[in-house]
Amino acid sequence: MNTAHVLALSGGVGGAKLADGLMQAIGGGRLTLAVNTGDDFSHLGLHVSPDIDTALYTLAGLANPETGWGRRDETWTFMAALDRLGGESWFRLGDGDLATHVERTRRLAAGEPLSAIVADFARRLGIAADIVPMSDQPLRTRVHTDDGVFDFQDYFVRLQCRPVTRSIEFVGAQQARPCAALLRALADPALGAIVICPSNPYLSIAPILAVPGLREHLRAAGVPIVAVSPLVGGATVKGPTAKIMAELGIPVAADEIAHHYGELLDGFVLDVRDAALRARIARPVHVTDTLMLTPVDRVRVARETLDFARRLRTPR
Amino acid sequence: MNTAHVLALSGGVGGAKLADGLMQAIGGGRLTLAVNTGDDFSHLGLHVSPDIDTALYTLAGLANPETGWGRRDETWTFMAALDRLGGESWFRLGDGDLATHVERTRRLAAGEPLSAIVADFARRLGIAADIVPMSDQPLRTRVHTDDGVFDFQDYFVRLQCRPVTRSIEFVGAQQARPCAALLRALADPALGAIVICPSNPYLSIAPILAVPGLREHLRAAGVPIVAVSPLVGGATVKGPTAKIMAELGIPVAADEIAHHYGELLDGFVLDVRDAALRARIARPVHVTDTLMLTPVDRVRVARETLDFARRLRTPR
Repeated sequence: MNTAHVLALSGGVGGAKLADGLMQAIGGGRLTLAVNTGDDFSHLGLHVSPDIDTALYTLAGLANPETGWGRRDETWTFMAALDRLGGESWFRLGDGDLATHVERTRRLAAGEPLSAIVADFARRLGIAADIVPMSDQPLRTRVHTDDGVFDFQDYFVRLQCRPVTRSIEFVGAQQARPCAALLRALADPALGAIVICPSNPYLSIAPILAVPGLREHLRAAGVPIVAVSPLVGGATVKGPTAKIMAELGIPVAADEIAHHYGELLDGFVLDVRDAALRARIARPVHVTDTLMLTPVDRVRVARETLDFARRLRTPR
Repeated sequence: MNTAHVLALSGGVGGAKLADGLMQAIGGGRLTLAVNTGDDFSHLGLHVSPDIDTALYTLAGLANPETGWGRRDETWTFMAALDRLGGESWFRLGDGDLATHVERTRRLAAGEPLSAIVADFARRLGIAADIVPMSDQPLRTRVHTDDGVFDFQDYFVRLQCRPVTRSIEFVGAQQARPCAALLRALADPALGAIVICPSNPYLSIAPILAVPGLREHLRAAGVPIVAVSPLVGGATVKGPTAKIMAELGIPVAADEIAHHYGELLDGFVLDVRDAALRARIARPVHVTDTLMLTPVDRVRVARETLDFARRLRTPR
């Protein structure tokens, strides 16, 4: 195999970090990043795509290094003025970030597909990778909890993941189709590996895999599929993965995540702190320090992941 | 008569300055400000009401003292980010200003009338006056020029009033009705005077008077109607009044403006620099320095205008 073209599946912050590493690790190669849009929502009349934007800002070098999401050198004049007018302020929109939402909303209303808008934004921001929404059709993640059923951002941001999750639903999944650019990437003879980024498997990767036919297209590409564990020492770096696993009755352990991906996987990248779980994973495993605290970490984890995929036999 | 309740008709910057003076001049009285919405337009998918916002910001003490429009202490992160994404940038929206447009657009889409939204904004901004759009129905000013027909902001901001005006059209005027709050103000027994602010008579006051029935309602209120000249020494302080008069074949002179308002007027406030024109005006005239460079000027011109109205006999 070669790494001329790598496809990565990603949610938000954790996934975008590895994607940033992959973009640098492949050198002159090509990276297609298929991003979760299950978190997209309409807020203040604007179409907000949190994971897409985290990918755009991270790969453009515009991300806020402290939060991982949002933009660096952001100002907050809009939110202060909105507060004063009595507008909804539980979802914080920075002034620069707002341009992305306003312009995307305008172009969607004019009839452009989300994928075309995102591709244009990526080009204008000087991003070398192809960022594609998993689907141009709306598929919305909805969380069923003990306190009721919530749209994803309502659960994730407004309620800060406090309600106890019982199940997760992907509304509109049956009407969704994989984005054409994603299918083109999967059909590319130069495609050498598929990487599932260390995003939340249940909230961020599951919506991607819920797009009808996508699982089959991934397998049919005939290249190794490797996932990087989002658990580090049995805990999540950021976000509610561990909390949700516990609430869904799943042991909070990295091998459970490999098990969750099941037949889809050819290999699993396990954090060194979880090395003891290696024997419980039915697929080839690469053990390394997966914590990405610095840009150097991102490139190292990406290189090891690609090297690992290269060593795997194309399975079928 | 009394000045317990004053109704003022206004366009943008010049009108808002006098309105600010009136608000202070009436002390414990009530001011209703009926504002032109002919300049409203949809930009980037947002409903922008330039004259309403100039009134809101001016009366709330939030206006940019240098430009007269927009907000003080504004930031421009949104526009910079929008530029980078290739968005339309000829109409500059400040970050704080954007909150007004986003929240108004959201509330209009939810079915609230513009007047209710503006009243709530004014209350939240601590404004003592009642700011009312002339109409809750869309009436749009369109400028016919030698270079084609343009929506108002296209002509005014993007083309900076360069095309030669041939005529001005108020699209939707026949379907518009005066705003209910404006009719209530006109029916108020405490109403003592109606003031036409020194706004552009052809572009800013004409759309208000184009709302069917409004002229008749103004006269039927039975209180003196006085206009303050927008020309100072035969020139405009700001905006294209003089240019448009010349292009429409009207002599650029204050008496022509009194003549333009015609039967509607009971009195006219003429700038001292144009005092020689006094004899050409068929109505009672008060001559004063109408230039409002400072907050003190605003209150002085407002007081003189109200005193002048008080001296006029209610005509019919």
